[in-house]
Amino acid sequence: MIRAAVVGAAGYIGGELLRLLIGHPQVEVVHATSRTLRGRPVDGVHPNLRGRTRLTFSSEDQLGHCDVLFLATPHRETMQRMPEFLARANVVIDLSGDFRLQDTAAYLDYYGVEHEATELLSTFTPGIPELHRERLRTADRISVPGCMATAGILSLVPLAEAGLVRGDITVDARTGSSGSGAKAGSENLHAERSGALRVFAPTRHRHEAEIAQATGHVVRMTATGVEAVRGVQLLCRATLADGVDERAVRAAYRSRYAAEPFVRVVAARRGMHRFPDAKILSGSNFCDVGFALDRGASTVTVIAALDNLVKGGAGNAVQCMNVRLGEPEDRGLGFTGLHPN
Amino acid sequence: MIRAAVVGAAGYIGGELLRLLIGHPQVEVVHATSRTLRGRPVDGVHPNLRGRTRLTFSSEDQLGHCDVLFLATPHRETMQRMPEFLARANVVIDLSGDFRLQDTAAYLDYYGVEHEATELLSTFTPGIPELHRERLRTADRISVPGCMATAGILSLVPLAEAGLVRGDITVDARTGSSGSGAKAGSENLHAERSGALRVFAPTRHRHEAEIAQATGHVVRMTATGVEAVRGVQLLCRATLADGVDERAVRAAYRSRYAAEPFVRVVAARRGMHRFPDAKILSGSNFCDVGFALDRGASTVTVIAALDNLVKGGAGNAVQCMNVRLGEPEDRGLGFTGLHPN
Amino acid sequence: MIRAAVVGAAGYIGGELLRLLIGHPQVEVVHATSRTLRGRPVDGVHPNLRGRTRLTFSSEDQLGHCDVLFLATPHRETMQRMPEFLARANVVIDLSGDFRLQDTAAYLDYYGVEHEATELLSTFTPGIPELHRERLRTADRISVPGCMATAGILSLVPLAEAGLVRGDITVDARTGSSGSGAKAGSENLHAERSGALRVFAPTRHRHEAEIAQATGHVVRMTATGVEAVRGVQLLCRATLADGVDERAVRAAYRSRYAAEPFVRVVAARRGMHRFPDAKILSGSNFCDVGFALDRGASTVTVIAALDNLVKGGAGNAVQCMNVRLGEPEDRGLGFTGLHPN
Amino acid sequence: MIRAAVVGAAGYIGGELLRLLIGHPQVEVVHATSRTLRGRPVDGVHPNLRGRTRLTFSSEDQLGHCDVLFLATPHRETMQRMPEFLARANVVIDLSGDFRLQDTAAYLDYYGVEHEATELLSTFTPGIPELHRERLRTADRISVPGCMATAGILSLVPLAEAGLVRGDITVDARTGSSGSGAKAGSENLHAERSGALRVFAPTRHRHEAEIAQATGHVVRMTATGVEAVRGVQLLCRATLADGVDERAVRAAYRSRYAAEPFVRVVAARRGMHRFPDAKILSGSNFCDVGFALDRGASTVTVIAALDNLVKGGAGNAVQCMNVRLGEPEDRGLGFTGLHPN
Repeated sequence: MIRAAVVGAAGYIGGELLRLLIGHPQVEVVHATSRTLRGRPVDGVHPNLRGRTRLTFSSEDQLGHCDVLFLATPHRETMQRMPEFLARANVVIDLSGDFRLQDTAAYLDYYGVEHEATELLSTFTPGIPELHRERLRTADRISVPGCMATAGILSLVPLAEAGLVRGDITVDARTGSSGSGAKAGSENLHAERSGALRVFAPTRHRHEAEIAQATGHVVRMTATGVEAVRGVQLLCRATLADGVDERAVRAAYRSRYAAEPFVRVVAARRGMHRFPDAKILSGSNFCDVGFALDRGASTVTVIAALDNLVKGGAGNAVQCMNVRLGEPEDRGLGFTGLHPN
Repeated sequence: MIRAAVVGAAGYIGGELLRLLIGHPQVEVVHATSRTLRGRPVDGVHPNLRGRTRLTFSSEDQLGHCDVLFLATPHRETMQRMPEFLARANVVIDLSGDFRLQDTAAYLDYYGVEHEATELLSTFTPGIPELHRERLRTADRISVPGCMATAGILSLVPLAEAGLVRGDITVDARTGSSGSGAKAGSENLHAERSGALRVFAPTRHRHEAEIAQATGHVVRMTATGVEAVRGVQLLCRATLADGVDERAVRAAYRSRYAAEPFVRVVAARRGMHRFPDAKILSGSNFCDVGFALDRGASTVTVIAALDNLVKGGAGNAVQCMNVRLGEPEDRGLGFTGLHPN
Repeated sequence: MIRAAVVGAAGYIGGELLRLLIGHPQVEVVHATSRTLRGRPVDGVHPNLRGRTRLTFSSEDQLGHCDVLFLATPHRETMQRMPEFLARANVVIDLSGDFRLQDTAAYLDYYGVEHEATELLSTFTPGIPELHRERLRTADRISVPGCMATAGILSLVPLAEAGLVRGDITVDARTGSSGSGAKAGSENLHAERSGALRVFAPTRHRHEAEIAQATGHVVRMTATGVEAVRGVQLLCRATLADGVDERAVRAAYRSRYAAEPFVRVVAARRGMHRFPDAKILSGSNFCDVGFALDRGASTVTVIAALDNLVKGGAGNAVQCMNVRLGEPEDRGLGFTGLHPN
Repeated sequence: MIRAAVVGAAGYIGGELLRLLIGHPQVEVVHATSRTLRGRPVDGVHPNLRGRTRLTFSSEDQLGHCDVLFLATPHRETMQRMPEFLARANVVIDLSGDFRLQDTAAYLDYYGVEHEATELLSTFTPGIPELHRERLRTADRISVPGCMATAGILSLVPLAEAGLVRGDITVDARTGSSGSGAKAGSENLHAERSGALRVFAPTRHRHEAEIAQATGHVVRMTATGVEAVRGVQLLCRATLADGVDERAVRAAYRSRYAAEPFVRVVAARRGMHRFPDAKILSGSNFCDVGFALDRGASTVTVIAALDNLVKGGAGNAVQCMNVRLGEPEDRGLGFTGLHPN
């Protein structure tokens, strides 16, 4: 059995990690830490786990050594405490933002603080099995990308790598409210957030830097909060390289993702389900990717969708764990998603 | 012009009072108080008022004398400060819970604290024009009922007064999230509240006592938070007195409400709009009332719906002001409501 | 492997059966019929199944013999064609309304037509493992109850059987839009249904008769459509027998459901998750049951919640199949449900 | 009094026209036509009008002559019948798509059919008071732009006219379900549409052509259905001309819209309400416009929001009528919008 622990288990990403790890046949959750809920049953704040576990929250000082340590901790605190975390486990899988950007200048630029563990940066492998599977098989330090970044990277890299697009890429990202976490703030009040179309980051969203890093293109991203609890959808626009047609674009995605268990190419001619929609992905580890060419094939619109807490976070982290520990990659991640939902 | 002031103007009821008073052709809002936002424009927290007013929040010590003072203040604090409020205006319209229950034992029972202004209780007139219009024409102290209480009182009193029902009445109340106010709490987070069917008061909701007081029946109410920002819907069940049939029930409502500007009887044989639904009442001052008899006419199911912030609060308060000051009763309350919405 | 077929596989219940059966390790789906979509891939109308199956719809005349035949067919047509269905499979699991009521007078009363297969009525076992597990182990003909009926039966039978309640029971049922099926009608348009609190059955809902049959009490049910796609929540009110207190009620539920894999007793003193809420049950096979006593313990309010397409339909049917065929009862039904969602 | 008639009054735009016209102090609605509902009260399909009118639907052959005729009729049919409509009223205000595009090649391209009333095209004035107020004062034939087009035109024209942007403009449009009209289709079923992020027009949406016509720029628009009944929000991206900074952009909007009653510039530094959001605009005639410059001021992101049935349709049409007939421009359009909502 894999002995796993989750630091920051009372939040939404933490809860999703617990849901997936408790349901994983080869995993035993040995610790779920919370600073404020020590000793309380985890199903008190994660009611979906009722009847599934008797696990209680522990405090961080109770953390012993484990096989895999998942970090659902805030950025900045994570890099400050990373040495301590690294000493606690064979494999550390970090879901914070601190080890996603290799460029410390970009980190300062987007996070507003100096990186405090620059010497560790290069020791982390990006938690993107679709791009770094071989490295992940032996990686002891894994940095899981941001939810919107994952959608952007998986949908744009096939075109960028194949040289099918050129110039700047614009990204219009839409996200549900669970991305804001379980902290109560007036901007997350139901009465304020319900039905909102809130442009909360017109420019400079942090995930933009991750997409730029992975694609090598300048990325201009706008983030809007939409009416959903879970779910991220990205609309990306890029200029096609000369002579690129729909067949070439489709081939790039098909070849890249034909064998991937969790990326589906969704680009039909018609129908209400012709393009990726996060609505049917809640709870699943899929990232659906689609595309449409402008008439004249001068630009391509790329559409990506995923559940921000699963493929955009906890599920992706568990997938990385499976790769690292030689488990079947989809173990514990089999949920199909619901329709209608 | 009527010089009006609102205490507690930064909350949702306060904001709705401002929306209605600013739109009222005979009213000038001379003060809108907030403890934390003094000097800030009111449209900062009430963005729907952009371009409609340059009003800024004032602190309570800036409150001068005015014609009408609306209190959107917490219970307990309201009764403690009532003497001070009464000195500030010719007419005080209180939207807190402190002067709704005439029975101090009931107040203690439902609010958990002793009433601290018992001598003032009898000086307040219930803010229900449909029941107390004549008294309201000369009332200087008006206590506006709770949102769910208003729906229950307007839908049940016609049957109770006519002696058409007997015994206990059960009430199943559903309410939107704005009823919880603008205070952020984890239970009001969008991610937690969205799509919820949350039974937050299985028994003993405070508004139950108001309905019992007005109808003279024992009332057993359950309150559930449903997916909506605005809106209250009540489902009430009562046993019919012997020999009462549908004609008698319909006649009781028709005669009672034929001339009322803001109560509509909605009880059709078929169609998706056959019964009251808060969905089409957002922003309007209507309380829609409907009913259906069980086969055999042994019981009646009464359905009521309103916007908790309008007819369930601020709109009802403005209607009371109009009655008291001799304005046309519907002045400033003309919004029809939207369909679809 | 269990060879299973679904008749009426293009609808929402049909699609949910496919989701669960395709995910069931011991089941092979040999037929999924649709009159209009023959030859088309099932993931066209059930997009959540993309990448999970290459199954296409077949016409009913292609139906061969199979081990288990699931009927997601309309009432009336189902009873007319039942002999033909019975000849097609060893075990028939019917999700229509035709074999739920043993009393043909009740059937006529609630369905408005004479029952046309009265001789078969007694040969069907109710698909409620919690009440009829032993019979189901050998039952070749199983009738799965209605979604709201399942919630009502599971939440009320423990009290009724133990004699803890007396007299009539009132039920306030709230349901999501998927219960109306995949047929387009103006009343199911998003613009009309979104945010609605629509009392579509003030009295005489068909599921009321099933609850009455199972509990032996007169049941008065009102059904309201609320803002949700999936999910049913029932609020039931009953008068307690003399001397019954909270301990007795809790004991009745605990003893009845202690060993049940899919019924959870949810009745906490406080907290936003203290009572059953369908919000966290989407996709899961749980029925959560809770209760609260009125002060004085004269009445009990029972709260039940489930996913109408899972425990209220397809999941319950698969659970019955597992019981009948000696599979572990929770096989293929392990999804925990999501929070937040 | 202005004698007004509405053709196609049973739909959502038709219903909104009735709401606004019935509430307009100077208007008498003399006809509201419907092919299927002749003689039926309009409040049967528009329940928000209960108690506000006794108007019944008439058939088109009952249409007499009137002062203003509003056409809420399908495209194609509208141009075919326009001569007949023109004979019926002094002023015709068309809300269909048939007279929005002056270029018949563009019409063929976007609508897929040849224009059949080309000789009339140039006789229509665009129903955009902010751009064509003087022409509208004497215009007898007015063509109201599409809902998304209105948002795009009002938000982009100030920059285009001032030469502040260059090159192609990309538009990401989000829209609620009421834009699809009152016709039932499976894609508009609540269970399918609820919570959807449906890219229904990745390229070539018809409203794109209207924005291009008004701005003189190539426009690439993508349209996504989001969870809302009412509301349109556009995110537009353009490249800034050399040397253009935020001050210049703000000045362009300020100068253009300082005196406009229904356009508000919403571009704050912070806060949850810093940019336009359709959430608070339901029922109001406002179009809120905001913007944000990318760091380095190379591109501008323009954000616009409105209620598709009001400023995006019926409200804009009534505003045009007011301009044409010398009424105060905001008469009958005073609703502020709700917060929270």
